[in-house]
Amino acid sequence: MPKILDRIKEPNDIKKIPKEEREQLASEIREFLLEKVSKTGGHLSSNLGVVELTMALHLFLDFPEDKLVWDVGHQSYVHKILTGRKQGFENLRQLDGMSGFPKSGESDTDAFNTGHSSTSISATLGMAKARDLQGKKNKVVAVIGDGALSGGMAYEALNNAARLHTNMIVILNDNNMSISENVGGMASYLGKIRTDIRYSNLKVGVENTILKIPKVGNALVKKVRCSKESIKRLIIPGMLFEDMGITYLGPIDGHNIQDILDMLCRAYMVKGPVLVHVITKKGKGYRIAEKYPSVFHGVNPFRVETGKTISKKGGLSYTDVFSNKLLQLAKENQRITAITAAMPSGTGLSAFKEKYPRRFIDVGIAEEHAVTFAAGMAKAGMIPVVAIYSTFMQRAYDQILHDVCLGKLPVIFILDRAGIVGNDGETHQGIFDISFMGNIPNLAILAPKNGKELENMLEFAIEFHNPIAIRFPRGTVYTGLGEYQQPIELGKSEIIRKGKRVALLALGSMVKHAQKVSELLLQHGIEATLVNVRFAKPIDETLLLELEKEHDIYVTMEENVAWGGYGQQVSSVICREQLDVSLINIAIKDMFVEHGKVYELYKRLGLDPQSICNRIIELMKKK
Amino acid sequence: MPKILDRIKEPNDIKKIPKEEREQLASEIREFLLEKVSKTGGHLSSNLGVVELTMALHLFLDFPEDKLVWDVGHQSYVHKILTGRKQGFENLRQLDGMSGFPKSGESDTDAFNTGHSSTSISATLGMAKARDLQGKKNKVVAVIGDGALSGGMAYEALNNAARLHTNMIVILNDNNMSISENVGGMASYLGKIRTDIRYSNLKVGVENTILKIPKVGNALVKKVRCSKESIKRLIIPGMLFEDMGITYLGPIDGHNIQDILDMLCRAYMVKGPVLVHVITKKGKGYRIAEKYPSVFHGVNPFRVETGKTISKKGGLSYTDVFSNKLLQLAKENQRITAITAAMPSGTGLSAFKEKYPRRFIDVGIAEEHAVTFAAGMAKAGMIPVVAIYSTFMQRAYDQILHDVCLGKLPVIFILDRAGIVGNDGETHQGIFDISFMGNIPNLAILAPKNGKELENMLEFAIEFHNPIAIRFPRGTVYTGLGEYQQPIELGKSEIIRKGKRVALLALGSMVKHAQKVSELLLQHGIEATLVNVRFAKPIDETLLLELEKEHDIYVTMEENVAWGGYGQQVSSVICREQLDVSLINIAIKDMFVEHGKVYELYKRLGLDPQSICNRIIELMKKK
Repeated sequence: MPKILDRIKEPNDIKKIPKEEREQLASEIREFLLEKVSKTGGHLSSNLGVVELTMALHLFLDFPEDKLVWDVGHQSYVHKILTGRKQGFENLRQLDGMSGFPKSGESDTDAFNTGHSSTSISATLGMAKARDLQGKKNKVVAVIGDGALSGGMAYEALNNAARLHTNMIVILNDNNMSISENVGGMASYLGKIRTDIRYSNLKVGVENTILKIPKVGNALVKKVRCSKESIKRLIIPGMLFEDMGITYLGPIDGHNIQDILDMLCRAYMVKGPVLVHVITKKGKGYRIAEKYPSVFHGVNPFRVETGKTISKKGGLSYTDVFSNKLLQLAKENQRITAITAAMPSGTGLSAFKEKYPRRFIDVGIAEEHAVTFAAGMAKAGMIPVVAIYSTFMQRAYDQILHDVCLGKLPVIFILDRAGIVGNDGETHQGIFDISFMGNIPNLAILAPKNGKELENMLEFAIEFHNPIAIRFPRGTVYTGLGEYQQPIELGKSEIIRKGKRVALLALGSMVKHAQKVSELLLQHGIEATLVNVRFAKPIDETLLLELEKEHDIYVTMEENVAWGGYGQQVSSVICREQLDVSLINIAIKDMFVEHGKVYELYKRLGLDPQSICNRIIELMKKK
Repeated sequence: MPKILDRIKEPNDIKKIPKEEREQLASEIREFLLEKVSKTGGHLSSNLGVVELTMALHLFLDFPEDKLVWDVGHQSYVHKILTGRKQGFENLRQLDGMSGFPKSGESDTDAFNTGHSSTSISATLGMAKARDLQGKKNKVVAVIGDGALSGGMAYEALNNAARLHTNMIVILNDNNMSISENVGGMASYLGKIRTDIRYSNLKVGVENTILKIPKVGNALVKKVRCSKESIKRLIIPGMLFEDMGITYLGPIDGHNIQDILDMLCRAYMVKGPVLVHVITKKGKGYRIAEKYPSVFHGVNPFRVETGKTISKKGGLSYTDVFSNKLLQLAKENQRITAITAAMPSGTGLSAFKEKYPRRFIDVGIAEEHAVTFAAGMAKAGMIPVVAIYSTFMQRAYDQILHDVCLGKLPVIFILDRAGIVGNDGETHQGIFDISFMGNIPNLAILAPKNGKELENMLEFAIEFHNPIAIRFPRGTVYTGLGEYQQPIELGKSEIIRKGKRVALLALGSMVKHAQKVSELLLQHGIEATLVNVRFAKPIDETLLLELEKEHDIYVTMEENVAWGGYGQQVSSVICREQLDVSLINIAIKDMFVEHGKVYELYKRLGLDPQSICNRIIELMKKK
């Protein structure tokens, strides 16, 4: 039987599908998503949850004139399907394939690039204001999850939207989840509205009845809405938003296309910013994902029938090692607390949460607050461990600088997913942290060569009593070089092997590469020195001066951009001390790095052992 | 007559002052503030506004056990007086004198270092949670202005406070102002509560009457508060906060010590987080400051009788030049918009606001939103100019990277107060922007040598159609070197004078210093080359290679920390290209820079012409 989905070839095609076929189309989209994502991996639960919502939006909007911004953006798959990008799912998130996030470069129906949380209302408001200034009339819509609504930026934007009072629609896609369970005052407020849904359905019913009165209906509803605050409070849920100056509509069932469409049309009639509260279910339609939405948030390839991942499980990840070691340290030291920004599972804190619930704090998607909250705890005598992915820590640059490091407070920053992260691509690569944290005074930055060293560094951090960050990559822990366990000492590197002429100065994940480089160099008869740098800051200047005696080439290696990275610190020392050595700075060029498999990206960026070796040989030939 | 104020010698002394003398003490504090701040300069209006509030807090709290955190912190003068630091006002904000902000190092009654906005609730919540874990019982209080409440972090913290449900008091010091007029949905919400004050006074009256019923009073009030949502909505103002899970008390008169104290005692009885809404008047008690609170927010020395500043007005500031030029460009180009985060006057946008109100947007204290909002505007075809002080731009690092530069959107960042800012000190120095912005791909960073060049750079920026930042310092514009006006070209420096051996590579404000250095060097018979670097990014590599022919010393000069600064980029090129030159990197060491006069700090940091000259001569002797 020919599929309805086959008739969707380009944006706006959905408008040609007869109303009675819409439900069937929704099913086909779910089938398609399951089939494709189970093969390539990707984001699943969130996309299954917004099938009807996205369809309603595509019925409501005209692309590309109208603007639709997906907060975070991992829930844009259905949007991609409906804008004619079905084909792209063959190579979803693969090197040179389709991105898993909205990309303007991919389609002009992707109104804004997203990836990090809570940006959509700001961007959309900017577009709405620009539209007004240009005298245009297009619609602008942001879709934001209840999780993303805990980010302060979203509140800043709502606050500003109320002031500018321009026409825009914010869809609150409320699935009662961040990646994990949602937390905080706003979450429980939304919870109250949800449980009140019968009551508010009644109210919507009343309003809808009034609306249907010819000619005056709209005006009447308006009148009720404008009536005395006190009466309004009695009949309108979502007064929190109304109090801020945002018209609130809802809550409504997010799996009923017609209801959503009707509500969108109503929202369009309202002057100024409107928030439409839509209740959806993460994982909708795929039983296993409905039951375990957080497991199916981001997935590797899996079997549809069982939900089990296909790829053989590797060894422990760095996250696992961190998780286990922190548990052990927390047992010995009651002052240790653990803080996450809505990612207890991703950052390895679930076990800590289980074991030490009082000392575990999930602040919601709120990295800025997470860091300053930790500063407060540290100031009052605790040792807070703030575990946040490198890319999301970017949000808290000022808080790290101003609230933690200025006061030299003993906060431990755990930068998970530092370096190339792979398939999530541009918005998620953790390749800036050495640069943005290195410029902050009073902060030490460490990177372990293997799992054991991560444990040792954690022990060191607990005793350090000053601001400190440990960065480590995504994925399986390196287990090599286990015999090298020199005690960690502030600003001291570890020499793995002494050679001459070439000194390989490798940081964290790159020590493994450096080891391979040294083997490759051996084939050329070169016995290189292999240094495990350990400290991106403060750097081991003494060692750099010493090495000059028997080396004329330094090769710095790091998974970070060059600007403000470790290699530049070495170049500074070389220049200042006028060392007679050449420097090869292996780092990421001044560019954003797209999605692809980690090893593919290494190669493309020249971070793989062979490329590094080639550069060294080349330089030696020139010398 | 002996003053009551003389009896305040150390923390908690205020508790010994008889109740009937409190009003007199308040007057004396105001007199003291006026006398001292009129001599040294500093923050005035905000401190005059919190005299009674601070006194009440000091009656309520026991220092240093109890913790009091001042948001932003410029309103902590009265607190400093009451904790025995009167003497410090002789050298307020002067080199090695007392800071104008809370500093733990200065007194253990300064519970947390502040300077930037909206951090206090986060820090206080951290302290409260730490207290609970340690089984302590001390009070914790944050004082936050209604302006600072527009910052997203404050919302993130309230959201988290509701969840943690620990005991803490947040004082909302509502003076209906940021530095300038306050804006946004929250501001108008608070406005509504304020105008509703008669009504809510009634309500407070009712509650207070109930409270006075022996034994059961408290329980009764609690019962009313816990009654059906709908009834609660009718009698409680501040439902927005209650909806979020924060108990709301107020609003009350912030100039009645006893009322505040009573309310604090009530707040202390409530379980979980409480927000106490206190209405104060900025500039209270000094007629001229009451009338012009924003003028008296931060002041230079002035005559108390007239309010006129004493110091002779210098020439135009960089801010003025930016302001005028932008007006002119905006007249020619309708696509230009201007965005400020609550500082229209400080950033020079007041004239723009006046002339082009539709194209001017004040988003409130919300730098994150400001930047992403600008990104949205740029995406929709406008050319937004975001003017934010360098130090506050730190808040928006991730938004610049993720929302603007990843999409290569034509947003123009104006970094005012870049470099040493002087008396505001550590928290306000603009010495990190090259480092944190330089690591972001697709962004150009410029710095003008004088006022005329700032104009030219603005013209260049408007035509650039890509992300671009222009940084310039606080204070009077440099008018020298007016004859050098080579057209601005991407990544090209301007050679002011050709010499040999020594090449002075000076960025922005340092060109003026370099000019003096070259004069000093001439006295030693050295004819140095003088380069106006212009682009911190992308750097002029071609020039660096060319200069090698006739120079053996490069001297980079910038008002920024060394890590990730311009000088390190030069050292990278020197190492990579194996240039046969020595490098002197004049930049700020890895440290926070305290308050003091700008020229004093230059000297201390080795950024003054004589120090730079000495380093060059020294190196030349060694060669």
